[in-house]
Amino acid sequence: MQGDDDYMHIQEFQKMMRRLYFHRDSERGLKGTFNWLVEEVEELREALENGDRKEVEREFADVIAWLSSLANITGVDLEKAALAKYEHKCPKCKKAPCACTF
Amino acid sequence: MQGDDDYMHIQEFQKMMRRLYFHRDSERGLKGTFNWLVEEVEELREALENGDRKEVEREFADVIAWLSSLANITGVDLEKAALAKYEHKCPKCKKAPCACTF
Repeated sequence: MQGDDDYMHIQEFQKMMRRLYFHRDSERGLKGTFNWLVEEVEELREALENGDRKEVEREFADVIAWLSSLANITGVDLEKAALAKYEHKCPKCKKAPCACTF
Repeated sequence: MQGDDDYMHIQEFQKMMRRLYFHRDSERGLKGTFNWLVEEVEELREALENGDRKEVEREFADVIAWLSSLANITGVDLEKAALAKYEHKCPKCKKAPCACTF
């Protein structure tokens, strides 16, 4: 069995982000927080282009962190939202793996 | 205790995305998948502006889904990356809640 530090539900991660940053996120507001998310996605692109592994991992972390912050200030439960749409099958073709034809 | 459908580790969600979409994600490749992520972030912006609650939730789901797809084709464990950077305290000031001064 793994300890708490090894595993984390999406919901727990979002709650951790709330604990750490909600005071700042709510002050900054929706638009400012969304713009930060966009900036982090751009930094992820740069890291992927540069190819530094550690930097890529840190930028993935930042994108999910800012997505969680945005979810916190909009009152969305990221985990519930994700599982409501992706419940072990493709939401379009209802198959697993996805067998959509385009 | 909640059932499997109510809870999901970030890692499990990423694995589910792999099961559903890896065949397509790997064919599409890094750039195409990154561009989809950017498009989903833009759709999230539109949903937030329009204010339809259900649509906002679906777009949050899509962003984390495409971020997971991107992590799958780059071989990054999103959960490990997130917890390596955000381990219950701010990575900059090392405090919880964050007490960074700007």
